[in-house]
Amino acid sequence: MSFTTNPDLVHVLRGGAIESFHRGALAVVDADGTLRCALGDIERPVFPRSAVKVLQALPLVASGAADTFGLSDEELALACASHRGEPRHAETARSMLNKAGLDAGALECGAHWPYDEAATRALAARGETPSALHNNCSGKHSGFVCVGCLMARAAGVEPAAYLRGYVKPGHPVMREVGAALQAATGWDLAATPAGTDGCSIPTYAIPLRAQALAFARIATGHGLAPGHAAAARRLRAAVAAAPFFVSGSGRFDTRVMERLGERVFCKVGAEGMYCAALPEQGLGLAIKMDDGNNARGAEVVMAAVIEALVRLDEGERAFMQDFSAPVLTNWNGIEVGALRASEGLRAALA
Amino acid sequence: MSFTTNPDLVHVLRGGAIESFHRGALAVVDADGTLRCALGDIERPVFPRSAVKVLQALPLVASGAADTFGLSDEELALACASHRGEPRHAETARSMLNKAGLDAGALECGAHWPYDEAATRALAARGETPSALHNNCSGKHSGFVCVGCLMARAAGVEPAAYLRGYVKPGHPVMREVGAALQAATGWDLAATPAGTDGCSIPTYAIPLRAQALAFARIATGHGLAPGHAAAARRLRAAVAAAPFFVSGSGRFDTRVMERLGERVFCKVGAEGMYCAALPEQGLGLAIKMDDGNNARGAEVVMAAVIEALVRLDEGERAFMQDFSAPVLTNWNGIEVGALRASEGLRAALA
Repeated sequence: MSFTTNPDLVHVLRGGAIESFHRGALAVVDADGTLRCALGDIERPVFPRSAVKVLQALPLVASGAADTFGLSDEELALACASHRGEPRHAETARSMLNKAGLDAGALECGAHWPYDEAATRALAARGETPSALHNNCSGKHSGFVCVGCLMARAAGVEPAAYLRGYVKPGHPVMREVGAALQAATGWDLAATPAGTDGCSIPTYAIPLRAQALAFARIATGHGLAPGHAAAARRLRAAVAAAPFFVSGSGRFDTRVMERLGERVFCKVGAEGMYCAALPEQGLGLAIKMDDGNNARGAEVVMAAVIEALVRLDEGERAFMQDFSAPVLTNWNGIEVGALRASEGLRAALA
Repeated sequence: MSFTTNPDLVHVLRGGAIESFHRGALAVVDADGTLRCALGDIERPVFPRSAVKVLQALPLVASGAADTFGLSDEELALACASHRGEPRHAETARSMLNKAGLDAGALECGAHWPYDEAATRALAARGETPSALHNNCSGKHSGFVCVGCLMARAAGVEPAAYLRGYVKPGHPVMREVGAALQAATGWDLAATPAGTDGCSIPTYAIPLRAQALAFARIATGHGLAPGHAAAARRLRAAVAAAPFFVSGSGRFDTRVMERLGERVFCKVGAEGMYCAALPEQGLGLAIKMDDGNNARGAEVVMAAVIEALVRLDEGERAFMQDFSAPVLTNWNGIEVGALRASEGLRAALA
């Protein structure tokens, strides 16, 4: 097995020298599927992981579950989230479940300590351990539970029993979620490599070009069924109204959407994945770093894309530099290096 | 700027598909400098970071400081360590400082929460915050402090005042440490890119070939001054006797050296660095992953090298597979993938 040599997109500097670097691929397309920018291999199917949570949340709105259970913007944003397990995240997941008449026992995502270190230390300081509500996917799963509850009601069966095993590919909830993903990307999920995600639902390998197309559709509504187009608008608006809930304190997705509002809908995924919808430009994009690096790979690329493609004023441009060219400091707070987008990436976006 | 395309050394599998992969370079040499195996660019100078702590600890023994202060195997191992900040690590650093008549106030490495998550949560549960003793480099720095104390005594000056600024390249302690590094690697540190390490001491870019040579010298003593050769033997023996102190609970360096004893001296460094001495083979080796990935890049390569080059019985071979081909599980404990050495790496080592 050999790989296409994807270009170096991000450099890690120390003392002026390049210490490490990150290779990857990037696709930017419009809703007609026309490629606006491509770097590296955008045809190899790659697992989108959590970058496509907004696509997996389309049925939550389109099915009527969001209205039936009266979900708030915060709750809809959490359904699209990889959150940090901060107290408000866990409480909001609990609230979604309660609205559907259920509790954390319905979640099949597993438990882990909050990604937010302060939240983990606070939990430990109180002598507590984490529950499934702290899992970064608990909002997405609470959304699945809401969809399943509505299905159970329609079928006249007991929701908790109906929901059991909802993470399996053959369960009606997951079939609905897979159908939304397939419709948006136009990629045949039955014929592509499949794996199990961190939270136990299936993840399907999809080329970056098709993932980017799905996000151009999220940006514009073009190419989506009317129910999904309306759901996309509502989810984008919910995340823009409550960006804390899609990630958490100090994080890229939260900070950037707090600042730029509906101009950018961006969502990180594990293993160096990043997708975004740029509604004003009518574009979608998808990034995958070869090595799976998010924090200093995919994020720096995403920041460079936003700088190049989104209309920004001077203050916003300065703000984005914290993400596109962050300074690295050591334990003494001494500046030791920096991250930067490669010349090749900047040139391709120019 | 463009890079040599280093080969893919490690694959990350999910659901049978390659989700991500890690490129890098590897040099294996003997003490004469003869190259036994090379993959990728081994001539580009790269920062060794903490992988060369044993070289930086040579003056601690060679100067007589280790004997003067009566340092134990645990303390000498800690001087070579990137430890996890577990209670015994912090206590052992404190003990080294106390033997030199000083305390944690002498350390200039900065403080950070323990890398060991359980240790961090236990600290938080007691309402405490971390000190410089919890810094993963506190043992190395305590060793520097011991060297500096001996120098201060010889000069007839007050140790605490003498030590101030010991992390700076021009300080007598750091000049001694740099001289040991230059002598072992044969690389001119004055003429190579330099940066500041996480713990504030200088780090110098050195080709993998020269780093591997230094470790062949650590393995054999050949090519080192007699004092440094004796120091290398003693440090290797100390780490083999107390491998918990060079890393920590459940970690590669600790577990592998607990099992294989003096047959392997291996030491991880930040940014995908790994060096090792194989005394029975008289070989040294150095690994650098392009992307800086340690846990699933450099460690898997190191495990594959050990499997290929070190004499192992059947039980040890099975033990090493936990490191060379680990299974990946998700939050529910479900097997979702695996890491594996690439065919190219296996072939080069065969």
